[in-house]
Amino acid sequence: MSRPSIPTGPEPQYGKVVSGYETFHSSEPFVCDWGGVLPELSLAWESWGELSPGADNAVLLHTGLSASSHARSQERNPNPGWWEEMVGPGLAIDTDRYFVLCTNLIGGCYGSTGPSSTDPATGNPYATDFPILTVQDMVRAQLLLLDHLGIQCLHASVGASLGGMQSLMLAALAPDRVQRLVSISAAACSHPQSIAMRFVQRQAVMADPDWNAGRYYGRSFPHRGLRVAREMGTLTYRSGPEWMERFGRRRSADEVPTLDEDFQVESYLAYQGDKFCLQYDPNSYLYISKAMDLFDITAADTSSQGAPCAQISDIKAPALVIGVKSDILFPVWQQRELAGLLEAEALAVTYLELDSPYGHDTFLIEVEQVGAALGAHLSA
Amino acid sequence: MSRPSIPTGPEPQYGKVVSGYETFHSSEPFVCDWGGVLPELSLAWESWGELSPGADNAVLLHTGLSASSHARSQERNPNPGWWEEMVGPGLAIDTDRYFVLCTNLIGGCYGSTGPSSTDPATGNPYATDFPILTVQDMVRAQLLLLDHLGIQCLHASVGASLGGMQSLMLAALAPDRVQRLVSISAAACSHPQSIAMRFVQRQAVMADPDWNAGRYYGRSFPHRGLRVAREMGTLTYRSGPEWMERFGRRRSADEVPTLDEDFQVESYLAYQGDKFCLQYDPNSYLYISKAMDLFDITAADTSSQGAPCAQISDIKAPALVIGVKSDILFPVWQQRELAGLLEAEALAVTYLELDSPYGHDTFLIEVEQVGAALGAHLSA
Repeated sequence: MSRPSIPTGPEPQYGKVVSGYETFHSSEPFVCDWGGVLPELSLAWESWGELSPGADNAVLLHTGLSASSHARSQERNPNPGWWEEMVGPGLAIDTDRYFVLCTNLIGGCYGSTGPSSTDPATGNPYATDFPILTVQDMVRAQLLLLDHLGIQCLHASVGASLGGMQSLMLAALAPDRVQRLVSISAAACSHPQSIAMRFVQRQAVMADPDWNAGRYYGRSFPHRGLRVAREMGTLTYRSGPEWMERFGRRRSADEVPTLDEDFQVESYLAYQGDKFCLQYDPNSYLYISKAMDLFDITAADTSSQGAPCAQISDIKAPALVIGVKSDILFPVWQQRELAGLLEAEALAVTYLELDSPYGHDTFLIEVEQVGAALGAHLSA
Repeated sequence: MSRPSIPTGPEPQYGKVVSGYETFHSSEPFVCDWGGVLPELSLAWESWGELSPGADNAVLLHTGLSASSHARSQERNPNPGWWEEMVGPGLAIDTDRYFVLCTNLIGGCYGSTGPSSTDPATGNPYATDFPILTVQDMVRAQLLLLDHLGIQCLHASVGASLGGMQSLMLAALAPDRVQRLVSISAAACSHPQSIAMRFVQRQAVMADPDWNAGRYYGRSFPHRGLRVAREMGTLTYRSGPEWMERFGRRRSADEVPTLDEDFQVESYLAYQGDKFCLQYDPNSYLYISKAMDLFDITAADTSSQGAPCAQISDIKAPALVIGVKSDILFPVWQQRELAGLLEAEALAVTYLELDSPYGHDTFLIEVEQVGAALGAHLSA
């Protein structure tokens, strides 16, 4: 009656997902926007291409919620990256021309400091003692890495989804350090329905008794809760039109239906949930999705953001804004709003609206269409 | 860090939700479409108004997933019903003119036979030995009640959401017994995205260790899983535009955010989940939502429906079809499709598309607009 149980080991198999990254370490205390302090900070990063002598050809890629720094295969990790067909020699983000960097965001679990990292004060994982993070915190950590690498100004800041939020935030927080801005399927702020969607995912994790108020390290992980959360997340990443075409109402077998997996679309969701819950830290999921909810660069009252927060009016870079009509998480009205707000600041804005059936995940799939616009903006 | 825990009693407090209904009992075995057999059957029902001497003024109301037979207050249960402002003397469904009936659907937990009922074969609750149900099964049970009451032909069959599916199915299964048909925010079949939405809700229930493969009666109920499921369901019942207006990005308190309830929209969802999980049987939720997934009156291959299933081409009644532009669960393209399919059968169809911000739940809220169309169709 229920699915084969997911093995509950002491730890997800992060190593299967990512390896071969560099680690930048800062031993200075990092004060987060909402007042929490990380006594030290690590940031995992990978790069492709060569930094020019003038250090003026760097393109920084920001990731979505769950991706690692592994945007593309490289010598120390030949596995395909999450943007393998977008980043590389002769590709849209051309590593023959650009020094392309990608970081794992703080709060994550793929090499950067996050809830599963050891708290130097206790010798144990931070767990839910980890401070509440903001997108601005994530971007300030990236700036430390850029300082360390001697990169004063980026050729471009590029991201999709949460990555687009970071891309916007970096351009607002350090306007003199970003020459070009790309935001794909992001938004100027999280609207209440997207907050609600992420809230219920967090509730699914926290409803799992194995979550144990976040103190599950070295014990049984809340895999079941994270599995349900990811199934729900997948619903918001893809779209109805694609599933009509791909699965329709086809069932997996012509037998008496069960309360569990039955229709093909259900097996697809179950597969996504099963895979993810063994590869990601549940507390990272909570902290990073919360940071997305808090994101707002249109706020009149910035005190609700914790520390003062950079604003859209601070941005100076010409922007490429891409939205997708079938996106239910960051709907096109938010893309139009974002483009309009940037234009109202007298910035050069290229706005592209894609009619793809792949919803929020379009940037991972429609590489040709997205890449053409992206490549043109980087060359402009 | 986590919400105040929900009391885990042996049983939800159904009595708080519904009382004072009539019970129709059939001691004949009821063979379900997918082959399961219920040795006996009870159907809870309530009525308002008087049956005419010719028994020709009956209006049958079909409920959504979680509603009881209590559509309107009555002497034995003065609590407001779920369509209190729609049904009554002088209202759109005028009890001065019509004998209005409403049933609790089989599979439910408000008086009709469902998974929490006692299996006469074992003396224990059916739990997950309950057979898989279809919407056609639900409607066949209603026909037994109509036979018992001597109602050969309904003045109208009326329902919204799953109730609309039942309304359509009844008009298809017994075309000579339905003079007028009303379908609000329903569909001719469940599309894969709506199946996916319900699948994840079921997974949330089944991921709760207290679910225990459905055998939780007399023990701790899977309240936490049902709470998450209802929070998720609420996301699909309401809509973004309403929440922008009602909650915006307002937080409940101007403090450091937590991973749990924080934004006002989150407190709203949490309230809905908390309330529901103490009032509804989790197994009923599973079985009834599954029946919705299986619904398809457009199927060329009716064998995938279990027993042969009535089809849209069987319908004879003039139809009122109402859809709502902000509905994400039964989107307007499905409403247009349904109206088109009925028109293709040369039936008289009145199609109304509402521009309400309340999404799928509009029929519960925009009583004036929905009621005007409904009242006119009943009088026509």
